[in-house]
Amino acid sequence: MRIDVVTLFPDFFVSPLQSGLLGKALYKQIARVELLNPRDFATDKHQRVDDEPYGGGVGMLLKPEPLFAAVESLPTIPQREVILLTPQGEPLTQPLLKELTARAQLVLVCGHYEGVDERVREHLVTREISLGDFVLTCGEIPALALINGIVRLLPGTVGKVQSLKSESFEEGLLDYPQYTKPAVFRGWEVPDVLRSGHHGAIARWRKEEQVARTQLRRPDLWADYFRRTNEELQSPT
Amino acid sequence: MRIDVVTLFPDFFVSPLQSGLLGKALYKQIARVELLNPRDFATDKHQRVDDEPYGGGVGMLLKPEPLFAAVESLPTIPQREVILLTPQGEPLTQPLLKELTARAQLVLVCGHYEGVDERVREHLVTREISLGDFVLTCGEIPALALINGIVRLLPGTVGKVQSLKSESFEEGLLDYPQYTKPAVFRGWEVPDVLRSGHHGAIARWRKEEQVARTQLRRPDLWADYFRRTNEELQSPT
Repeated sequence: MRIDVVTLFPDFFVSPLQSGLLGKALYKQIARVELLNPRDFATDKHQRVDDEPYGGGVGMLLKPEPLFAAVESLPTIPQREVILLTPQGEPLTQPLLKELTARAQLVLVCGHYEGVDERVREHLVTREISLGDFVLTCGEIPALALINGIVRLLPGTVGKVQSLKSESFEEGLLDYPQYTKPAVFRGWEVPDVLRSGHHGAIARWRKEEQVARTQLRRPDLWADYFRRTNEELQSPT
Repeated sequence: MRIDVVTLFPDFFVSPLQSGLLGKALYKQIARVELLNPRDFATDKHQRVDDEPYGGGVGMLLKPEPLFAAVESLPTIPQREVILLTPQGEPLTQPLLKELTARAQLVLVCGHYEGVDERVREHLVTREISLGDFVLTCGEIPALALINGIVRLLPGTVGKVQSLKSESFEEGLLDYPQYTKPAVFRGWEVPDVLRSGHHGAIARWRKEEQVARTQLRRPDLWADYFRRTNEELQSPT
């Protein structure tokens, strides 16, 4: 997979792309990340990339010309998706990350300042994605989250496929409590069942904990899970 | 504000903390970020920070001892919050970011591998926060999002307070479309109303666009907004 990031702050990405599991995956060329600065595509002599909004208001907007020129300078691989990172976009979820792993090329356009000219949304990008219902100073962090979450799902990044299958959101439930050594730490013990060796009892305990935790912490996720599970039970297959 | 980040990958943060508006804010000492590696607090000779889960399963868990020792080595400022970044936590929202700006100290514990020993959740942290319903390889990206979103709200980071007030989620609606120069780009024109100079008409157009966009893209946000607005209308004040 090729990922092109259109960013006014390419320096932002230097250390995160070299760090941890993502750094290893990029080193192994499981994916390739290229950085492109729209400032290099500004047409006026001051390399201006932003200007004031029509109709008034504070803050500056990213102008359309440098963003169009930057994206249009890139090679186009079939099945590519051009994504604007913006709080106005569709919220990022695990199924969306999975869907994006099927693309051969992703172009990530990082917003900045107050936002970007609407014509970028209308005529340049194919999709808008939001990291969540909160505001950051820049689209670089959402872009990094997208890169990390997608590359993580590509074959070879995480050691065992099993590790991807048994995780949060895979079933639509929160994860169960996990414990490692020591068995007793400051008087707090690992639950007996996990040290029992009874695989059936351990699996039951874990599922009960997943359900209880999801009901308590995320009634919204639980409602989805409950509805989906009942639909499956009632389907005529 | 003092922010302590407990991370196995302090190098991750090098370039993001120097970049853009956040970099400027930290340079101006609007907030102070300190990095702490739990590996430096491991007690065995191999500096081991992870181990296998009790009860079986793939992947490694962060052991409790190095995380407790790292957090306990920090100075404690009154009103501090110790936050674990984990998909099991409460979802990050703009009101939560605002709430956290009132703290004098935040300790951010970054999860890794398959997760952290449950005793860390139970006895070390005061709060668990999730960036969203998706999985990343590490808690460093959510920690960075939290730092950025919080420092952005502190006085002095963003130029004009007005800029914070007129933005996404402030009212519970998505933002309106914005346009900047040129007035015509590749034949696509800025809407006449924005060039009319009629402030009332511009304000009405923007509000209508906010409502229409939120209804179309985020029926969940719209439902919340609609309920809240009606409650305000019906309240006896």
